[in-house]
Amino acid sequence: MCRWLAYSGSPVLLEDLLYKPKNSLVMQSKRSQLGAETTNGDGFGVGWYGKMGRPGVFCSTEPAWNNRNLRELSAHAAAGRVFAHIRASTGSAVQQTNCHPFRHDRWLWMHNGLIANFPTVKRDLVLAVDPALYPEIEGSTDSEILFYLALSFGLAQDPPAAVAQAVGLVEQVGRRYGVRYPIQMTVATTNGDLTWAFRYSSEGRSRSLFHSVDISALRLQYPDNQVLQDLSDDARIVVSEPLGDLLGAWREVPDSTCVVVDGGTQQLHPFTPAVPLAVG
Amino acid sequence: MCRWLAYSGSPVLLEDLLYKPKNSLVMQSKRSQLGAETTNGDGFGVGWYGKMGRPGVFCSTEPAWNNRNLRELSAHAAAGRVFAHIRASTGSAVQQTNCHPFRHDRWLWMHNGLIANFPTVKRDLVLAVDPALYPEIEGSTDSEILFYLALSFGLAQDPPAAVAQAVGLVEQVGRRYGVRYPIQMTVATTNGDLTWAFRYSSEGRSRSLFHSVDISALRLQYPDNQVLQDLSDDARIVVSEPLGDLLGAWREVPDSTCVVVDGGTQQLHPFTPAVPLAVG
Amino acid sequence: MCRWLAYSGSPVLLEDLLYKPKNSLVMQSKRSQLGAETTNGDGFGVGWYGKMGRPGVFCSTEPAWNNRNLRELSAHAAAGRVFAHIRASTGSAVQQTNCHPFRHDRWLWMHNGLIANFPTVKRDLVLAVDPALYPEIEGSTDSEILFYLALSFGLAQDPPAAVAQAVGLVEQVGRRYGVRYPIQMTVATTNGDLTWAFRYSSEGRSRSLFHSVDISALRLQYPDNQVLQDLSDDARIVVSEPLGDLLGAWREVPDSTCVVVDGGTQQLHPFTPAVPLAVG
Amino acid sequence: MCRWLAYSGSPVLLEDLLYKPKNSLVMQSKRSQLGAETTNGDGFGVGWYGKMGRPGVFCSTEPAWNNRNLRELSAHAAAGRVFAHIRASTGSAVQQTNCHPFRHDRWLWMHNGLIANFPTVKRDLVLAVDPALYPEIEGSTDSEILFYLALSFGLAQDPPAAVAQAVGLVEQVGRRYGVRYPIQMTVATTNGDLTWAFRYSSEGRSRSLFHSVDISALRLQYPDNQVLQDLSDDARIVVSEPLGDLLGAWREVPDSTCVVVDGGTQQLHPFTPAVPLAVG
Repeated sequence: MCRWLAYSGSPVLLEDLLYKPKNSLVMQSKRSQLGAETTNGDGFGVGWYGKMGRPGVFCSTEPAWNNRNLRELSAHAAAGRVFAHIRASTGSAVQQTNCHPFRHDRWLWMHNGLIANFPTVKRDLVLAVDPALYPEIEGSTDSEILFYLALSFGLAQDPPAAVAQAVGLVEQVGRRYGVRYPIQMTVATTNGDLTWAFRYSSEGRSRSLFHSVDISALRLQYPDNQVLQDLSDDARIVVSEPLGDLLGAWREVPDSTCVVVDGGTQQLHPFTPAVPLAVG
Repeated sequence: MCRWLAYSGSPVLLEDLLYKPKNSLVMQSKRSQLGAETTNGDGFGVGWYGKMGRPGVFCSTEPAWNNRNLRELSAHAAAGRVFAHIRASTGSAVQQTNCHPFRHDRWLWMHNGLIANFPTVKRDLVLAVDPALYPEIEGSTDSEILFYLALSFGLAQDPPAAVAQAVGLVEQVGRRYGVRYPIQMTVATTNGDLTWAFRYSSEGRSRSLFHSVDISALRLQYPDNQVLQDLSDDARIVVSEPLGDLLGAWREVPDSTCVVVDGGTQQLHPFTPAVPLAVG
Repeated sequence: MCRWLAYSGSPVLLEDLLYKPKNSLVMQSKRSQLGAETTNGDGFGVGWYGKMGRPGVFCSTEPAWNNRNLRELSAHAAAGRVFAHIRASTGSAVQQTNCHPFRHDRWLWMHNGLIANFPTVKRDLVLAVDPALYPEIEGSTDSEILFYLALSFGLAQDPPAAVAQAVGLVEQVGRRYGVRYPIQMTVATTNGDLTWAFRYSSEGRSRSLFHSVDISALRLQYPDNQVLQDLSDDARIVVSEPLGDLLGAWREVPDSTCVVVDGGTQQLHPFTPAVPLAVG
Repeated sequence: MCRWLAYSGSPVLLEDLLYKPKNSLVMQSKRSQLGAETTNGDGFGVGWYGKMGRPGVFCSTEPAWNNRNLRELSAHAAAGRVFAHIRASTGSAVQQTNCHPFRHDRWLWMHNGLIANFPTVKRDLVLAVDPALYPEIEGSTDSEILFYLALSFGLAQDPPAAVAQAVGLVEQVGRRYGVRYPIQMTVATTNGDLTWAFRYSSEGRSRSLFHSVDISALRLQYPDNQVLQDLSDDARIVVSEPLGDLLGAWREVPDSTCVVVDGGTQQLHPFTPAVPLAVG
C-alpha cells in the first residue's frame, strides 16, 4: 500500500510539508507507523499548482528518502495546493507512469489501497473507461484505472458522484468474478481549488485517514510552534497518518466518508458507492 | 524507431555480439548508420536462453552505450539464442516495461517500426487480444500489443500465420480510422529454437533488415578473421543493419518477407498480411 | 565533451531557455551541431536561483531529451540566473555526482572539455585542493576538481584570478607528466549575481563559445519574434553553440578570453593561466 | 549500515542464495532482523565468478526487493563464489560506484559498518593509498577507501595482514583527530578461490556475523530440506544474519575474528589491527 498527503492553504515550501514534520511523508517512506507496509520505497510523486492552471508533477521510481532531486525541488518550489504520495507496490511495475499523483488536465488523483484481484477484473474495468480518455492511460496500476473511471463518470462535474460510480462499478465487476471485498481505498483528488478525499473499503475496515483541524485554534494552544505560526488560517492537510504528535491537531476521518476541503472549511459527508447508470 | 539483432548458433559470449563488432549494436545505440533515427538511446534489452526453458531478459531505460551492467552481463553470459534491441521511442514512455524483447513463456519478440496513429487505434487492437492474455500486458507500446495480438492468433502454433493475422488486423483497424499506412515493421520472434524475422510495411518501403550468410564460406574467404573462426557453422544473425563491412557477409532481406532460421539454414518466404478469421 | 548554457536577466521559465529555442539545449542533447560529440546523452543538470541564496540543482543520469521531470520542472520554475548542462562523458562514471553544474554555497560551476590524462594527474591536483574543502568533493570528474581548485585559489574573491591559477596548476602538473596539452575548456561560474565564462585550451584551439548581444537592438530588428519581446533588456546568454539562426544574435567569444556578465553588460578580457603562488 | 552474504562451494544459481531462503538477502533489503537499520534500500550489488578470472559485478542504486534485472540474472547465473550486498547509506551518495562489492582485478570486497567521522579523516586515508592504485577509486564511500588501503598494504599477498594494517591506519588516523571509536566493520574479501571475513570494531561491539556449519551434518539432521540436499559438501556461507531458522545451521563469528574459508573448511583466527609499517 502507500501513504499520501494533500495540502491546501496559502503557498508553502514543499519541504515544510515533506521533510520538516517529525513524522513527515519522506520519513514515512522508510518507516511508516500506521501503514499496511512499513516501507513505502517503490517510488514517489509530488504534484503542485504554480501559476499555470496545469499542475506540475515530479515523480521517481526511487525511494523518497534518498532522492536528491526531491529535496532540491522541495527547497525551492512553493505552492498553495500540494499532493504527495509514496508508493509500496502491490504488484504492478515500479515505473514513473505508475507513480501517483496521476494527472488529467487540471486534476490530480492519488490512492492508497488496491482493487482486489486486479488482473482478473482489469479488462472489464478498462472497457468501461470513456474511449476518448482511454489513450491517455499510461501506466498499469489499479489506481490509475480508478482515476480514469472517475473521469469517465464525470469527476470534473461532480467528484463525489463520479467516485461513487467508479467504486460502484469496481464492486459490481469484482463481485461478478467472485471477489469478496473488491476495493480498499483512501483517495484524494483536486482541481487545484477544492480537494476531495475519500475513505472507503468493501469490507468496511479501510486504511487510515486523518485531516488537520482549524490552525488558528491550534496556534493559540501551541504559541511556540513555529510551523503553526507560518501556516495560513485556511491551511488544511489530509493525510494517511498524522505528521506529528501534536495533541488535538489531527482528527480521524470516519470510514465511508468523503471530506471536502474548500478554503478553510472542511465538510464530511457519508460516502456510498453507486451503481453506474451507463452500466446498470 | 529502433535497431535489433537476433542470433542463433552455438553459445557465444554476449559481448562478442553486442560490443566487439565494428558497427555493434551498442555502437549503433549512439550512432546508427541506417536507422530512421541516428540515436537509439531510449533504453535497451537483451534476451538470452540459458539452461532454463524460459529465457532471461535484462533491460534498462538507460542508453546501452553507457550501461555498466550490460557490459558486465555481456562479459559473463553465453547463449546460443540471443535477442538484443536498442530503443528510440516514438512517443511512449521510457520505462522497463516498454523495452524489447518482450517475453511470454518461452517466446521473445522485438520490433522496429510503429503502428501509425497508435493512440487512435490502440483500444480496438487491445480488445482483440485474448482476454486470458490481456492481464500480462505490462507496458504501453504498440510493439507489445502487436506481440499479444500475434500470441492471440496462435504464434506458438504457426508463427508466420499468426503474425500475418496480427498485421492484417492492424491494417484493417487502421484503415477503418483513415490511416493510410497503418504499420511499419521489422519483427523478430523465437521460441528459443527457431527464429522468425519479418520485414513488412503497409507502404511497401520497410525499415532495413539483413541476414548473415553461411559462415563456413566466409571463413574460407577471410582466414584471418578471428570472429569468424570462433562462430559455429550454423551461426546465423538477423540484424537491422550490418555489424561490419565484410564484403559478402550480409544479405538484405527483401521487403514483404519472412525469414525462418532453423539451425544452419535460413529460408525466405513471401509475407502477406491476412484478415484474421475471428474478426472478419 | 558537453554543451552548456548560462542565462542572466529577469526571471524566465526554464522551458523558454531549455526547450523552446530551435537549437535548444535539450535538442542538442540528441544532436548538437558544433560539439566534439553529436550526442550529449550521459546525464544533465540545471541550476537555478530562486528566492533562497543557495541555488537549486536538479540533475539526472538520463538523457535530457527523454526526461519527464526536467520538462515538468522547466514548465513551472522561473529564475533570473540559470545554468544548464548536458553531458557527454569522457570516461568517468555516469552518476548524479558527476553531473554539472556543481555547487558550493552560492556558487555554480560547469565545464565543457577535459583535463588530459586525468587518471595520471588527478592525485596531484586533488592534493592541491584546500583540505577544508576536500570532503565536499562528491564525484569523480576532472570538472569538479577544477572547480575545487578554483575555490581553493579564491574563486569567491576574484574569479578570473582564481580560475587562472587553477588552470595554471593543471598545466604545470600536466607538463610535469609529459602531457602536451593539459587542458581544454569552456567554463561558466556564477554567484547568482555576476556570471563569468572562460574559453581556453592549452593548444589554443578551444571548444566553441558564444554570447548573445544586446536584446533591445535585436528586438528592433525582429519585431515579430516573440521570444525577444519577452526577454528583459539586460538578458544575456552565454552558450556552447547558438540556440537558433537569428542573424546577428550571437557573437563568438574569442579564444583565451574571459566574459563577465554584469546585468545588461558583458565585458571581454584576455585570459591567461597563472602559476599559483602556493604551489609555484 | 548494510547486510551481506559470501558463498563458496559448487556452482549454485544466484536465486538459490538471494531469493529462496526464508530470511534471504533480498528479503532483508526491506526488513532485516539484526541490522542497525531495518531497511537496506540504498542500492545493492552482486559479484560472481564465472569462467573468466575476473568476476562479474552487477549493481544498482535501486532497492534489491523491486529490481527486476537482479531477479532475471539470479535465475540464470550460477557460480561457485558469490558476494552479495544490500546497502543502507550512512551519508555518501546513492550511486553505482558506491555499491558493494568493489572489484580490483580478481578481488572482491564488501563491508558493513563505517569509518567514523569519515569526512574529517578521509583525506589522510586517501593519501595513504598507493598512488598507482589511486586513479582506480571510483566512488566516495569509506568502504572503498578501506579496500584500497588493504590493497595498498598487500591484500593480494597476505589478506589478514593487509586488512590488519588498513584497520590499524584507520584507527591511528581517527584517534589523531580525536575520534573515540574510529571503525566498525564486518568485511568479506575473496580472490575467487579463498574467502576471508572479518568482524571487528574499535569499541569491541561489532555488527553481527555468522557462518554456516558443515552441510553434511545438517543434511543428516534435516533429510527433508531440499536446499541442503542441493548444496555441495564444501558449501560455506558467511552472512550478516542467518538466512533461516534452521537450528544448528549457523554459528556466530566471535568479535575480533578473521574467518578463512578454504574449500569445505573454515578456520577462525583472532584479528588485531596493526600499525602499518609504511606509516609508522
